[in-house]
Amino acid sequence: MRTEIKGLNEECGVFGIWGHVDAARITYYGLHSLQHRGQEGAGIVVSDEEKLKIHKGMGLVNDVFTEAGLDRLTGTGAIGHVRYTTAGDSDFINCQPLLFNSQTSSLALAHNGNIVNATALKHQLEHQGSIFQTTSDTEVIAHLIKRSGYPNLQDSVKNALTMVKGAYALAMLVEDAMIVALDPNGLRPLSIGKLGDAYVVSSETCAFDIIGAEFVREVQPGELITINNDGMHIDRFSYSTERTLCSMEYVYFARPDSNVDEVNIHMARKNLGRKLAEESPIEADVVTGVPDSSISAAIGYAEKSGIPYELGLIKNRYVGRTFIQPSQALREQGVKMKLSAVRGVVEGKRVVMVDDSIVRGTTARRIVKLLKEAGAKEVHVRISSPPIINPCYYGIDTSTKGELIASKKSTEEIREEMGADSLSYLSVNGLMEGIGRSDKQPNCGQCLACFTGNYPTEIFPEADHPYDKVMGGK
Amino acid sequence: MRTEIKGLNEECGVFGIWGHVDAARITYYGLHSLQHRGQEGAGIVVSDEEKLKIHKGMGLVNDVFTEAGLDRLTGTGAIGHVRYTTAGDSDFINCQPLLFNSQTSSLALAHNGNIVNATALKHQLEHQGSIFQTTSDTEVIAHLIKRSGYPNLQDSVKNALTMVKGAYALAMLVEDAMIVALDPNGLRPLSIGKLGDAYVVSSETCAFDIIGAEFVREVQPGELITINNDGMHIDRFSYSTERTLCSMEYVYFARPDSNVDEVNIHMARKNLGRKLAEESPIEADVVTGVPDSSISAAIGYAEKSGIPYELGLIKNRYVGRTFIQPSQALREQGVKMKLSAVRGVVEGKRVVMVDDSIVRGTTARRIVKLLKEAGAKEVHVRISSPPIINPCYYGIDTSTKGELIASKKSTEEIREEMGADSLSYLSVNGLMEGIGRSDKQPNCGQCLACFTGNYPTEIFPEADHPYDKVMGGK
Amino acid sequence: MRTEIKGLNEECGVFGIWGHVDAARITYYGLHSLQHRGQEGAGIVVSDEEKLKIHKGMGLVNDVFTEAGLDRLTGTGAIGHVRYTTAGDSDFINCQPLLFNSQTSSLALAHNGNIVNATALKHQLEHQGSIFQTTSDTEVIAHLIKRSGYPNLQDSVKNALTMVKGAYALAMLVEDAMIVALDPNGLRPLSIGKLGDAYVVSSETCAFDIIGAEFVREVQPGELITINNDGMHIDRFSYSTERTLCSMEYVYFARPDSNVDEVNIHMARKNLGRKLAEESPIEADVVTGVPDSSISAAIGYAEKSGIPYELGLIKNRYVGRTFIQPSQALREQGVKMKLSAVRGVVEGKRVVMVDDSIVRGTTARRIVKLLKEAGAKEVHVRISSPPIINPCYYGIDTSTKGELIASKKSTEEIREEMGADSLSYLSVNGLMEGIGRSDKQPNCGQCLACFTGNYPTEIFPEADHPYDKVMGGK
Amino acid sequence: MRTEIKGLNEECGVFGIWGHVDAARITYYGLHSLQHRGQEGAGIVVSDEEKLKIHKGMGLVNDVFTEAGLDRLTGTGAIGHVRYTTAGDSDFINCQPLLFNSQTSSLALAHNGNIVNATALKHQLEHQGSIFQTTSDTEVIAHLIKRSGYPNLQDSVKNALTMVKGAYALAMLVEDAMIVALDPNGLRPLSIGKLGDAYVVSSETCAFDIIGAEFVREVQPGELITINNDGMHIDRFSYSTERTLCSMEYVYFARPDSNVDEVNIHMARKNLGRKLAEESPIEADVVTGVPDSSISAAIGYAEKSGIPYELGLIKNRYVGRTFIQPSQALREQGVKMKLSAVRGVVEGKRVVMVDDSIVRGTTARRIVKLLKEAGAKEVHVRISSPPIINPCYYGIDTSTKGELIASKKSTEEIREEMGADSLSYLSVNGLMEGIGRSDKQPNCGQCLACFTGNYPTEIFPEADHPYDKVMGGK
Repeated sequence: MRTEIKGLNEECGVFGIWGHVDAARITYYGLHSLQHRGQEGAGIVVSDEEKLKIHKGMGLVNDVFTEAGLDRLTGTGAIGHVRYTTAGDSDFINCQPLLFNSQTSSLALAHNGNIVNATALKHQLEHQGSIFQTTSDTEVIAHLIKRSGYPNLQDSVKNALTMVKGAYALAMLVEDAMIVALDPNGLRPLSIGKLGDAYVVSSETCAFDIIGAEFVREVQPGELITINNDGMHIDRFSYSTERTLCSMEYVYFARPDSNVDEVNIHMARKNLGRKLAEESPIEADVVTGVPDSSISAAIGYAEKSGIPYELGLIKNRYVGRTFIQPSQALREQGVKMKLSAVRGVVEGKRVVMVDDSIVRGTTARRIVKLLKEAGAKEVHVRISSPPIINPCYYGIDTSTKGELIASKKSTEEIREEMGADSLSYLSVNGLMEGIGRSDKQPNCGQCLACFTGNYPTEIFPEADHPYDKVMGGK
Repeated sequence: MRTEIKGLNEECGVFGIWGHVDAARITYYGLHSLQHRGQEGAGIVVSDEEKLKIHKGMGLVNDVFTEAGLDRLTGTGAIGHVRYTTAGDSDFINCQPLLFNSQTSSLALAHNGNIVNATALKHQLEHQGSIFQTTSDTEVIAHLIKRSGYPNLQDSVKNALTMVKGAYALAMLVEDAMIVALDPNGLRPLSIGKLGDAYVVSSETCAFDIIGAEFVREVQPGELITINNDGMHIDRFSYSTERTLCSMEYVYFARPDSNVDEVNIHMARKNLGRKLAEESPIEADVVTGVPDSSISAAIGYAEKSGIPYELGLIKNRYVGRTFIQPSQALREQGVKMKLSAVRGVVEGKRVVMVDDSIVRGTTARRIVKLLKEAGAKEVHVRISSPPIINPCYYGIDTSTKGELIASKKSTEEIREEMGADSLSYLSVNGLMEGIGRSDKQPNCGQCLACFTGNYPTEIFPEADHPYDKVMGGK
Repeated sequence: MRTEIKGLNEECGVFGIWGHVDAARITYYGLHSLQHRGQEGAGIVVSDEEKLKIHKGMGLVNDVFTEAGLDRLTGTGAIGHVRYTTAGDSDFINCQPLLFNSQTSSLALAHNGNIVNATALKHQLEHQGSIFQTTSDTEVIAHLIKRSGYPNLQDSVKNALTMVKGAYALAMLVEDAMIVALDPNGLRPLSIGKLGDAYVVSSETCAFDIIGAEFVREVQPGELITINNDGMHIDRFSYSTERTLCSMEYVYFARPDSNVDEVNIHMARKNLGRKLAEESPIEADVVTGVPDSSISAAIGYAEKSGIPYELGLIKNRYVGRTFIQPSQALREQGVKMKLSAVRGVVEGKRVVMVDDSIVRGTTARRIVKLLKEAGAKEVHVRISSPPIINPCYYGIDTSTKGELIASKKSTEEIREEMGADSLSYLSVNGLMEGIGRSDKQPNCGQCLACFTGNYPTEIFPEADHPYDKVMGGK
Repeated sequence: MRTEIKGLNEECGVFGIWGHVDAARITYYGLHSLQHRGQEGAGIVVSDEEKLKIHKGMGLVNDVFTEAGLDRLTGTGAIGHVRYTTAGDSDFINCQPLLFNSQTSSLALAHNGNIVNATALKHQLEHQGSIFQTTSDTEVIAHLIKRSGYPNLQDSVKNALTMVKGAYALAMLVEDAMIVALDPNGLRPLSIGKLGDAYVVSSETCAFDIIGAEFVREVQPGELITINNDGMHIDRFSYSTERTLCSMEYVYFARPDSNVDEVNIHMARKNLGRKLAEESPIEADVVTGVPDSSISAAIGYAEKSGIPYELGLIKNRYVGRTFIQPSQALREQGVKMKLSAVRGVVEGKRVVMVDDSIVRGTTARRIVKLLKEAGAKEVHVRISSPPIINPCYYGIDTSTKGELIASKKSTEEIREEMGADSLSYLSVNGLMEGIGRSDKQPNCGQCLACFTGNYPTEIFPEADHPYDKVMGGK
């Protein structure tokens, strides 16, 4: 769904629970609340403390699981995963969690992020006799763990993770424990909560609210946390850590009801909108946001500027997988699909259209056109993040550099191309201040690489760029 | 979907087009934009000027139609219908349009509204030998038309409609024309637009925007309009008319991007919110609306009161038909489904929660509880319509009088039951002024019966109450 | 399924039960055993003695009904129907039983056969104000019953049936009774059985074996039988009756485990094969039958001739609805679909290929080709029925006269066209003797019209030919 | 489907083609004709000479593949696999072919049979750092090949296969070749054919007839055959071979239109029936076979004994996956499911009921009961194979020894338990003679282990028994 509106795609969401009699069902509701992080596939592995059982499939959480399917997943521990949409239906093999059964024990892994040295590691592992059934990074991590060969699983995981570079929020399940780990830069969010006596882990805190759990703490960069029947055991696999959380989580990915590093996402976005109004004011009659992700920023812009906030753009809620796309001929006659402009709101008005980001520029251009066709006198585009000029190597599909419009064109050129009356982006400082963390840590503890090119980890040659692999069928 | 959030259900939406080479597809997109008016079933009948062809089924427009299905529906005229959700899967027979084939000509009908004297008419028709295959009012109208026996279809329709009491926005299709009619009170909205040379008709104007058509005029109460290859021919079947459009269209049903009687729905709702802020101000920290229908009113309340508007409640977009409902045990542990409160927004705050209406009171109670559990210090409920104390006989499922909480309890009792810190409704005057039509016509040209008990038409005995029939399997 | 192998299609099967706590489920299993009589759609109506409930749909019995669907159909009386396959998915409206609800009582009908004066009756009914929603004959019967207007349902049905000409095995259900009737010629089979205290009715007796019921008697031509809580009441609506049961029931339609007029179908077919061997002997090495319907005749031919019976042709059991048909190119390369010849059996052999009938001749030609390609030295085609030279008006889709190869070509021409080394049909006398009833009644009590042109009822003009209507979307 | 009738299940069927522009479609039709060897899952891997693409899924071939799915599988080489039915839907991971992608080349494997030392090999591989995602033997073979480490794939495969004990008919695919291999005992059938210039390989020759290919030769025990654009290259990985083909292929598994070792299966089965009539004659009125697999033997018995062969048992063709099973109560009332006895054939008769084998004895008991309830005066059970008293370790699910009724009870005890009037099995000599190969090779070149306990290979401890693994979720 998001795919079509935006050019940005998060790779995944992970969820886990240990110590609850209904572990699979809780995981189902948890994954449900993380559905925005991936709509391609979903899976759950449970442990009944004797063995692991798995169910996964292509599609939405709703589609993959049935009552009967969940009933079979008896157990008190579970991890789950949602995965983002790509074309093709043969990608079942890449659905997560991955489950590895050996004769002595089993191991399941679910992963959010991207390993930047996966190709090199895979090459080396194949040289040593490993064979791969998936094209996912997660299988590389599993091989590394297996080959570490320590008698104790935690030691094997620590050893494996020292070889891995990039972004990873990991949840693992074995018969008698759930283990979670976060990369030394903490590029992806991962939080721990409690539901009665059970521990839960989730990519976003919104899952805790949905299942009625309480937030306990965020997993810190470099931590390896084991949760078993004795409780939670916090350990580290790296001491050389520096939090550089992905800024786009604030700007676009996370749900407005989640908190990331204790900042509420809706509030953060609203602040970005307020900053944007300060930095780039304009005389106008109405402010409108591009639904759903830019609503908060638009409200902030309206509040700060004093221009009324209105529903100038409506998203059709019933456009699902089976929706029949209009033919080119019908589109040219004006048939709309997901988004329509509200004539009664924008006709004859000067409109501020707030959007969270621009990747290729095609969506913004289409929306400006919609507004103008609905009678808007002027359209002023305000973007609540800085221009994206560098690709992401940490699990966000921002496409290759060549496709990023802001890496090739000036703001004025982009404005002209999209037919807007004005166009402004939020500054990098504005972004940092908006999130309200500028005084805490350098870079406000965030990864700003897509805006600045300043990558927080080593970056490997092109072959490791995940989005080339995507083309090859990832 | 709405069913579960609300106790109010519109019965239907109708759409039609004459003179377009791709009539079925345009109707598909039109129905899509009217999906909020009915999710139970959908259907399209087309005319290729020689014969009529039909496809209909249970479910959403997306589910009922496939590419191949639409491809079969070749023709230049079409009418379509969406129907609201009830339990049971055998109701296919009641899906519309209804198609009647005779050896000389065919007739298809699609209907939004409710005939208040349907039982009496049916009784009389059965006495004359008619047999009924559906339980819908629409079949009654078809029999009346057939029995009118005028050589000219228009005359037969006029004759039939004089016998029918209640609310009806009708679209009919025969081999060589589309005919539309609106009851003498104009209880339901019905508008005409143009798409190139083709005429379109729709329950709401949002459909025109979606397909790229221009609004032409509203169908007036008592009009019978024939559209054929010669153009549009406006006629009347009743001269004793008085517009009393359903107020709930403004308050709740219509899409925010539709205009009804030339008033934009979002704007009307925002005005209702502003009026509500004037009538029932409160000291508070945040204003939040119940998604999706109360967002506009909440924005209006915030704007007028100066209290910031925030996303305090989030609706989960992925709760579809196949969603596995949490067990009672899990609900008690706090597992939520569609709606969750945003802790980061409401915790420690005095919250104004704006909702559009209260029917049974159960939903509002649940939402107040969600907000309090998420840490709201105070919850002030503001309803952007007056108390509903009378059942609707014109096609809205407001349940029987006994279920309407405001018909049994005082506002203070309701407030206490829902655990709110204060509760206020908009006054009837506030409603009329909010819509901004008070000076145009008595009752501002609207039906206010559910608030005032002042029904604009004759009302027939209990046997004709549609919601008893619903229980019998409608 | 049969459709593709044969050019002959029975229209329907009916089943009913009164007085069993699990009426819907018994009907499900009954319809299941009648599935060969119709694969297009299926439906069940139950009575709980207060009201009627219906479920029906397109597809096989298996596809139409779910556990949950059956659970809703509580009641102690039920009738059900299976319908044959046509193109198009909009034919839901024609699925049976048809259910007519009036305010005082309801009536459901299920019908096997064809009304030859349906068009005339429909014309007359429309003239009187009736409107039709289906294109099925059954709706005509319902209108006639309703208009009969006798205070007593049985009298109305009798009155209606006197106006109807053609073939009809009818099962009807009202709140407090099941009523069955058979046309004065008894063209279609209909039997009554007992299952404990409950009465059952079925197009074929195989259903009795499947559900564990005992055969009681056949419904006689012109009978109207009412079954209610007081038991079975046999009445007549016609005294001018003469049994002329469809011969093709013996030759092709009925299941081998059914008895028709107390003759077992497998045994009857085997006798036809024996007669065929007597009439048209040939020197050969193996006898093989075209599966499934010609197996019995082939066994009879082998037994009588002393030539070994072998499996020379194999039917692929897994060719279902979702089977992907080979492209023309692949067919030309030799890709087969449903039927393949067994090289190891026929290679170098003189093969007698027994088939039950020839309609257009295309299937037989294809099978001869298969056998020759698999190495058969000679192929001798033996048909266990006479040449079909006249269309059927009583519910069998034998196509129009022009498509019947035997009405246009001599046996020698047909033989040559199909590439067989010899071709013989069973004689009409052989058919009558084979069924073993020649001494009982003239025509052995059977309709032989498709062979002889001697129709047992009045025949109406072309407009009433059912297979023209089929083209129009029946 | 078979599962429910029988206690015997073949594990799989394999098919492959190299050098055809429509490789995936040909494989689809090939797998279709092998569907009887496995209904749990199906898959196809294609090579377009640059890379391998896969599609697989749970269910029948028809269900797994769509037109669009096949269209994506462009390539000129393909291998495919069908797998037998077990409970559970999570077994997707075990569907074959397995595809292993490395950075330099890919390898796909499809396997019919069972590796008897899989557990030991797996243990050893895990010790060396391999991790397993499936529970199938095939993954073991892939690891062994990968670890062999020869520069040339053929050498690696040869090396791997020397370590593997048991039954395996293997088809492998790499970018530029298809490779097939058969275990040194040739326990499973595997044949090579030609379709134009393309080579095909199949578990059974019936696939060749279906696709229009010509039989070329059987793959011999110990052969490793490479097919690429230069043609077919025959090599060996073992010179210590002795053909001991599974006898149950003749008795039960293979399709009647297949040839195995140049013997037609229908003819072989008929001979078994004839031998059985010689060894165990009986005075009776009719012979009937249990459909579908015992029909040929029954015809043979009838022919030899002179007792007429009749359709005394009918199988319901429409019992699919969605069939609603009758409740216990309905079964006790006599509701039947798949099989019913034909009263008109067996009533008052002495019936010889021919079945191909007895595993647990429950099915035979049920059928004897059906026949007696339908009025059979006597039922004489004749089994066209010897008593099964030993489990199979080579890929047939004959259950554990404890479940094999003939390993615990005498023939007289079994007869009594099943309520038959007499019971005889074919002798081991009769089986060998029936197949007509007694003079060619010791054991007539067949594995008779399930009858004699004389296993042709080394057998490993219980942990390697495949049917314990089945319990663990295989």
